[in-house]
Amino acid sequence: MHVDMNCDMGEGYGAYTLGKDSEIIGLISSVNIACGFHAGDPQVMAGTVRLARDHGVAVGAHPGFPDLLGFGRRNLACSPEEIDAYLTYQIGALQAFCTAHQCRLHHVKPHGALYNMAVGNEALVRAMAKTIARLDAGLRLVLLSGSDNTRMAALTEAEGVTAVFEAFPDRGYTAEGTLVPRRHPAAVLHDPEQVAARAVRMVTAGAVQTIDGTEISLSAQTLCVHGDNPNSVQIAQAMRQHLEAAGVSIRSM
Amino acid sequence: MHVDMNCDMGEGYGAYTLGKDSEIIGLISSVNIACGFHAGDPQVMAGTVRLARDHGVAVGAHPGFPDLLGFGRRNLACSPEEIDAYLTYQIGALQAFCTAHQCRLHHVKPHGALYNMAVGNEALVRAMAKTIARLDAGLRLVLLSGSDNTRMAALTEAEGVTAVFEAFPDRGYTAEGTLVPRRHPAAVLHDPEQVAARAVRMVTAGAVQTIDGTEISLSAQTLCVHGDNPNSVQIAQAMRQHLEAAGVSIRSM
Amino acid sequence: MHVDMNCDMGEGYGAYTLGKDSEIIGLISSVNIACGFHAGDPQVMAGTVRLARDHGVAVGAHPGFPDLLGFGRRNLACSPEEIDAYLTYQIGALQAFCTAHQCRLHHVKPHGALYNMAVGNEALVRAMAKTIARLDAGLRLVLLSGSDNTRMAALTEAEGVTAVFEAFPDRGYTAEGTLVPRRHPAAVLHDPEQVAARAVRMVTAGAVQTIDGTEISLSAQTLCVHGDNPNSVQIAQAMRQHLEAAGVSIRSM
Amino acid sequence: MHVDMNCDMGEGYGAYTLGKDSEIIGLISSVNIACGFHAGDPQVMAGTVRLARDHGVAVGAHPGFPDLLGFGRRNLACSPEEIDAYLTYQIGALQAFCTAHQCRLHHVKPHGALYNMAVGNEALVRAMAKTIARLDAGLRLVLLSGSDNTRMAALTEAEGVTAVFEAFPDRGYTAEGTLVPRRHPAAVLHDPEQVAARAVRMVTAGAVQTIDGTEISLSAQTLCVHGDNPNSVQIAQAMRQHLEAAGVSIRSM
Repeated sequence: MHVDMNCDMGEGYGAYTLGKDSEIIGLISSVNIACGFHAGDPQVMAGTVRLARDHGVAVGAHPGFPDLLGFGRRNLACSPEEIDAYLTYQIGALQAFCTAHQCRLHHVKPHGALYNMAVGNEALVRAMAKTIARLDAGLRLVLLSGSDNTRMAALTEAEGVTAVFEAFPDRGYTAEGTLVPRRHPAAVLHDPEQVAARAVRMVTAGAVQTIDGTEISLSAQTLCVHGDNPNSVQIAQAMRQHLEAAGVSIRSM
Repeated sequence: MHVDMNCDMGEGYGAYTLGKDSEIIGLISSVNIACGFHAGDPQVMAGTVRLARDHGVAVGAHPGFPDLLGFGRRNLACSPEEIDAYLTYQIGALQAFCTAHQCRLHHVKPHGALYNMAVGNEALVRAMAKTIARLDAGLRLVLLSGSDNTRMAALTEAEGVTAVFEAFPDRGYTAEGTLVPRRHPAAVLHDPEQVAARAVRMVTAGAVQTIDGTEISLSAQTLCVHGDNPNSVQIAQAMRQHLEAAGVSIRSM
Repeated sequence: MHVDMNCDMGEGYGAYTLGKDSEIIGLISSVNIACGFHAGDPQVMAGTVRLARDHGVAVGAHPGFPDLLGFGRRNLACSPEEIDAYLTYQIGALQAFCTAHQCRLHHVKPHGALYNMAVGNEALVRAMAKTIARLDAGLRLVLLSGSDNTRMAALTEAEGVTAVFEAFPDRGYTAEGTLVPRRHPAAVLHDPEQVAARAVRMVTAGAVQTIDGTEISLSAQTLCVHGDNPNSVQIAQAMRQHLEAAGVSIRSM
Repeated sequence: MHVDMNCDMGEGYGAYTLGKDSEIIGLISSVNIACGFHAGDPQVMAGTVRLARDHGVAVGAHPGFPDLLGFGRRNLACSPEEIDAYLTYQIGALQAFCTAHQCRLHHVKPHGALYNMAVGNEALVRAMAKTIARLDAGLRLVLLSGSDNTRMAALTEAEGVTAVFEAFPDRGYTAEGTLVPRRHPAAVLHDPEQVAARAVRMVTAGAVQTIDGTEISLSAQTLCVHGDNPNSVQIAQAMRQHLEAAGVSIRSM
């Protein structure tokens, strides 16, 4: 058994830093790098690509809405043409840093509101897959794991791109299999042991306990590690230890 | 004899348009496309790449300082690392639109203050050549033609990149071979016939008359056509006609 | 009888210009000046305030979402606290230019998506009135005239601010009294005589013909003139002439 | 004897925070609040104005170049008209938050490269004073204390604005009375006791020891406390204690 552990990184901007990239990079197998629209600037991108390459971690693009002020977390009513152009621009910019630092872009994970808007949205998922396929059909597209994985995988496959489904061990899940919204008190779990136990259960049983106490099935090839919590490093360490102790190896998606 | 005619395009942004791209595109052989920092947005870039491809015009990147408010025309005190990262980011973004629209990026022409700062600046020219070479050693680097072309060409060649030198038939030249600053009344020439005659003289005699009335030698492989003047189209037409009448064919650098 | 004619102005940014401000300013009685978020930059704001002051036109703020790329026309999911802060910031910036150029800010008209989001949205209208009242209770708040004018006026009055209702002679109206969306072919009228006739009917009869051919009642104290259409000047001239010929004087709201 | 202690605050932006505003606010008498160009966003500005008001600290505007990416620390070649407009815009925006939160703007301290460009620059100082005077002649203008204080004070006074001179106890000084550049190892002092002793000497003796070991005279009405160093709070506490122990009371400029 194996699974990927991914983390959003390179979310600084100018004088600002965010996240514990250098502490977490050694614990994960994939990184999603902000591309300058919601976070990240060209120098931060260059540094994060180098960091990932030096640790042998798979590099992904983490494109978002052009909303630095809102960190890409606010819905913005964009046309399909706008989203196509925004993805192309950001992915291309990151590809150039990969080229400059002799590594290869491996996947694309939409950020924030764009990621959330794609949940259950066939037209948007298809459009994103088409955009990505035109740039590099070898790029994986990371989507939230839900009850419609099979259908979504078929959609992206039809455009020539492989989807990879992601789960969040440190986020609460509803009985419907969606993430508990951030404003809800049960949205985020903070105990490393609890999060790690959920990660193991996700991979070995394909299941997660919801906020109702029931368990639902959940299939994920990659687990998200947050890098901006006070105990991010402890959580990532605990997840890695528990997963390896359960016979799950950590490798890029 | 042959020469390239290039024009800066894709300088709109959001609701704003600038220049007569669709009228001029049929008259030139190379285009320099703004990359979102001083002008241009992702949709404008996509549309301009398509326009150039459909007209068989060589596509170049036109990266500038991150200063939309100043249109990239104001000096900004950047470190070499910042310039390296800004170029990589912008060139990569444009490369992605080229990939998406099945054409190939052909050259890089720095914009505005960045272009001017490179004049006579060996360290900056070398740094830009190195940045470009890491992305695609086949990319040409467009620089202002001056008395130091040979030295600058050697510098970029040492980094693995070929320099192409540019002249401005519609700009006044000083006796030192530099452009007359824009605030000077003789900075820009507006008469299509006069500009066209200067273009022919530049190509066939390798010379240009300065504001002092003397003539200096000037070697250029590409001539710039401005797209944002009231009579841009007339100037471009006259240049093309006079050049072809003089036996000079227009082809990309 | 009298009515105000208003126009959005100062929508340029850096190297970009938009609208025919200097031609239209002499035909209207109020101006809404972009404040730098969706359009406008500090120098454009300064110049537009001076232009309005020199023509004795009432100066209003035209605040929008922080989305220059989308010209403030895209819905952005903002919290009430964000909208409060964005309005305060933009209105304050424009007030400073009024102070510097010895005139007084007179009204606030939200722009684009923010204006549209306020239609029928009691919570948002109340919040905007509260924000404005804290800055200057003498400022009028311009809202789209609809069937709920009385209720909306009471809401803003309760916060200490007077609402002014606006109609659009050059826009199609639905039978429900809302504007026909811009993507619809009947969204915008272009014939100056037709637009002027509708303006007269709006003021003298308090009515407008809808796209269904029926007539609905409509009460407006200010009529919007668009400054960015090819025949904006002709439309503004025709409106002013027809209104004055019908005995309606043009004066600020 | 008395002196002002000031600190730059409100330097967060969107998801980013910077500085220990809430810990330092109780130790100082004046605050300089970023206005959205180099740092700060409307919500951050609102919160920082409230924080200052609640602690009875004098509120100042801290306007900078429009360069969030460079934190306003990079020289940008702006025209006098641009600087006038940028200052007016930013000061006005902050004034509105003061109005909204029932306090009064007290001073203006230019930020970063704009502050440094004003050192010894009579034309720029005069222009800034003129801009400020047009907004509110009661606003103080904070400038770096140097050997030309008398001349600079006369310049601003001629425009109707009072200058206040600032010294930096935690920065190294050259024999010429200028700050040691940040890239120099002796640019910043980190020992709270040493910094506090320098602060006392500045106020009680009007003198500071330079990196050459000599002492030069220095007249300052306000001392800057940095909020973004690891031991900012310790330094501010030590400065306050030593100053008060030496009989110097801390009060706003």
